Amino acid sequence: MNIEQIKEIEQQFLEYVKKMIAYHEAINVMYWDLRTGAPKKGVEQRSEVIGLLSSEAFKMATSAEMETYINTLLSEEVKNSLSDITLHTVLDCKKEYDRMKKIPLEEYTAFVTLQSQAESVWEEAKETADFALFAPYLEKLVTATKKFVEYWGYEGNKYNTLLDMYEPGMTVEILDKVFGEVRDSIVPLLQKIEASPTKMETEFLYKHFSKEAQEKFSIDILKQMGYDFDAGRLDETVHPFATGINPGDVRITTRYVENDFRVAIFGTIHEGGHALYEQNISKDLVGTTLASGTSMGIHESQSLFNEIFVGRNKAFWKKNFDLLKSYSPGQFDNVSLDDYYRAINEVKPSLIRIEADELTYPLHVIIRYEIEKGLFNDEIEVKDLPKIWNEKYKQYLGIEPDHDGVGVLQDVHWAGASFGYFPSYALGYMYAAQFKHALIKDIPNFDELLEKGELQPIRAWFTERVHQYGKMKQPLEILQNATAEGLNAKYLLQYLTDKFSGIYQL
Amino acid sequence: MNIEQIKEIEQQFLEYVKKMIAYHEAINVMYWDLRTGAPKKGVEQRSEVIGLLSSEAFKMATSAEMETYINTLLSEEVKNSLSDITLHTVLDCKKEYDRMKKIPLEEYTAFVTLQSQAESVWEEAKETADFALFAPYLEKLVTATKKFVEYWGYEGNKYNTLLDMYEPGMTVEILDKVFGEVRDSIVPLLQKIEASPTKMETEFLYKHFSKEAQEKFSIDILKQMGYDFDAGRLDETVHPFATGINPGDVRITTRYVENDFRVAIFGTIHEGGHALYEQNISKDLVGTTLASGTSMGIHESQSLFNEIFVGRNKAFWKKNFDLLKSYSPGQFDNVSLDDYYRAINEVKPSLIRIEADELTYPLHVIIRYEIEKGLFNDEIEVKDLPKIWNEKYKQYLGIEPDHDGVGVLQDVHWAGASFGYFPSYALGYMYAAQFKHALIKDIPNFDELLEKGELQPIRAWFTERVHQYGKMKQPLEILQNATAEGLNAKYLLQYLTDKFSGIYQL
Repeated sequence: MNIEQIKEIEQQFLEYVKKMIAYHEAINVMYWDLRTGAPKKGVEQRSEVIGLLSSEAFKMATSAEMETYINTLLSEEVKNSLSDITLHTVLDCKKEYDRMKKIPLEEYTAFVTLQSQAESVWEEAKETADFALFAPYLEKLVTATKKFVEYWGYEGNKYNTLLDMYEPGMTVEILDKVFGEVRDSIVPLLQKIEASPTKMETEFLYKHFSKEAQEKFSIDILKQMGYDFDAGRLDETVHPFATGINPGDVRITTRYVENDFRVAIFGTIHEGGHALYEQNISKDLVGTTLASGTSMGIHESQSLFNEIFVGRNKAFWKKNFDLLKSYSPGQFDNVSLDDYYRAINEVKPSLIRIEADELTYPLHVIIRYEIEKGLFNDEIEVKDLPKIWNEKYKQYLGIEPDHDGVGVLQDVHWAGASFGYFPSYALGYMYAAQFKHALIKDIPNFDELLEKGELQPIRAWFTERVHQYGKMKQPLEILQNATAEGLNAKYLLQYLTDKFSGIYQL
Repeated sequence: MNIEQIKEIEQQFLEYVKKMIAYHEAINVMYWDLRTGAPKKGVEQRSEVIGLLSSEAFKMATSAEMETYINTLLSEEVKNSLSDITLHTVLDCKKEYDRMKKIPLEEYTAFVTLQSQAESVWEEAKETADFALFAPYLEKLVTATKKFVEYWGYEGNKYNTLLDMYEPGMTVEILDKVFGEVRDSIVPLLQKIEASPTKMETEFLYKHFSKEAQEKFSIDILKQMGYDFDAGRLDETVHPFATGINPGDVRITTRYVENDFRVAIFGTIHEGGHALYEQNISKDLVGTTLASGTSMGIHESQSLFNEIFVGRNKAFWKKNFDLLKSYSPGQFDNVSLDDYYRAINEVKPSLIRIEADELTYPLHVIIRYEIEKGLFNDEIEVKDLPKIWNEKYKQYLGIEPDHDGVGVLQDVHWAGASFGYFPSYALGYMYAAQFKHALIKDIPNFDELLEKGELQPIRAWFTERVHQYGKMKQPLEILQNATAEGLNAKYLLQYLTDKFSGIYQL
């Protein structure tokens, strides 16, 4: 093949991908619309439309045409002539193609049906705290997923293949080490805090704060963070999310609870962090499969960096506490900045992951990781999950659920067979701490910038090292380039120890 | 072919159409989103996505596969075995197929490019009131459209083919008659009104009425009309519209002008009328090409029936004037219901079609009809349009534009080559009057229902005779069935004469 012929095939491939991405963009807009206010009587037909378009996109991703593109463009004679973006796009398409094509179609279809049944059974099981109801479905999902792992193949631990779906390159070998360190360090720190005489005054957090005022404050903070309202919008939903429809259209939703403003504020900052990532992906990647975050973990590092290292930092509130007070007159009378800072950083072991404080949060995730790893290495059986769950909560957090509804049944992930997903939550937290450590070498006046509300240099630091690449770089490659080392738990542990030793005067 | 084989092909065809309709639904959601608040930096990529999906839908509508379906399903041996819905869907697809396939692709592509250039040139020409700038583009659009008419073929007048695109079955022969009657009746009535000593007090209309209160009132009225908020929503846009995404999701937008509440109120009732049509199409048609209004004229009959025969009726305001007053305290002090009724029905010839009162509105449309007919019958040249336009305004409305920006250049339609569209505005008005005449035979207490705010029986009357059929029936078939006669201008003329003779004491 001569260069001209290669260029022509490359161009055809990019057009093909652009069309596939168009389906995804349309689907994303319709999802956003469904969740932000689509009328309920149109939902059934809308779901059918989403299904039809999804199936078109699926067909394109797994077509004979796609196979030909992959084989042609990745052949030795062609590969080196491709642009960097094309090459990464082909590799990304190949990964998806292999994942899909290795599973016999009838097994995949049965699996999708099972998933959807499992999700509705899980809802009922959670409601009635009846694990026995859900267990047979979970059993089947685990069995089917194990079979998929066999189809896909694996290196080292079988669970690695599942991890790789959400965090390319991540392995049990790495996680065992870092999660072990985190667990062994947080558990004793938590025990010290629980024994500490320091107690927080938190009652004022639960006073009435109007929804309208919360929204205005949320918008102010998003602007401070550098969220671009010309490339996004903020809406209200029951379950907050961020969605990158394209880098010029990255939307956030939040939830307003009038007797706990923290839900909206920290939720908005969290989703805002995700959105900053998507808004700052290089425009060169638009229309390819690469114009989104590279992994769940790196994505979570951006949301958690903002929520925790910015949003729960005292310097940030030196700038913003007066503004907050102005939006809820009376609520914070006689509350000093220090009182406020301590209140929003209270540590209190709890049963529900999504309500956890920033110290105990990783323990919730590690428990799920240990269980999943055990399930996929035939060391744990589904029927024993409630017992194991409760024991681990007792052991790590010192508390035990009254019933499985607030225990092993609390998260939807397993009903959706998202095995391998949970670790990214804690990984993101470690990445964030490690980024922070690297960032303050370049921006030593980090806290000062927060006090001034000048967050742009921080956003720019991340854009240069993380955001712009989209999926052009793998997670561990981004981490290595930005921090000059591999994953290291010590930065998170140092941060937590320093912060909470201070707050609790340990 | 045996029955089983026919059933199978029929099923395949319906699946094929369902997919094509899925593209349209996705496109409609994205359009709505673009117009109601999509962030501007995402617009370019969104437009590309809409383009890609539109082209997929176009390919499906004109594919060899579609051709085979049409030929197979409409063959003598098969045709009679089809369900009624399938048969009408095939016929509808055939019409679209023929329309598209008869034009050589390169000519169609050049035409689309020309259209888009013409629209931006028109914007500038309107702004600067420079018809000479726009004329060469209009010239080309007319020439190209004439060529298309040759490709498509025509019966009787060439312009019939254009009329048929928006109002299937409508002809110059019918329009010349009814429009002639309307013109010859309204012009002298208008002259009498202008000579009448009766003058309206209208100043109070322009007082401040808050946007929030206008929105609340709009919602109250929509509910009264029977608009189903579980199958729709109301938003704000610069140019109001209604969009039927599917019968369970029919959205309205309106515009709020704080010193003229009529824009929102009558605009909302108008769009609400369109929406009632789309919401009440039979669910059996969902997923076919038939689940939308049958023609522009019948659609407009539903919006105008509500806007004029309901919304500008005194009985309606007997019910709603107090409610209106409650939303804008002070504005209507010392304004009686009669004063109010007369003010909102003031007749005043004006230059701009979309701002016209209900008496002079048809004249604006008829002028455009006469010009279009002249253009396509080679009786009028593009270069003479400003002169002809101004003469007709002088002759019919007694006023003349100062410049072409408020004259011949005011509407976008010609820049988009929508020749044949304008008549549907006046047709809809005549249909509405004729429906009203038939309706009061069944519902003689029409005014009483309005006074009570009980509009459901009226909506139900239209659902039974118009809405439910979607595109299953042709416009003139619907009219004939509902009113037991063909198009007859006398009902509109009788209505206008009675109403304005009363108001102006002629």
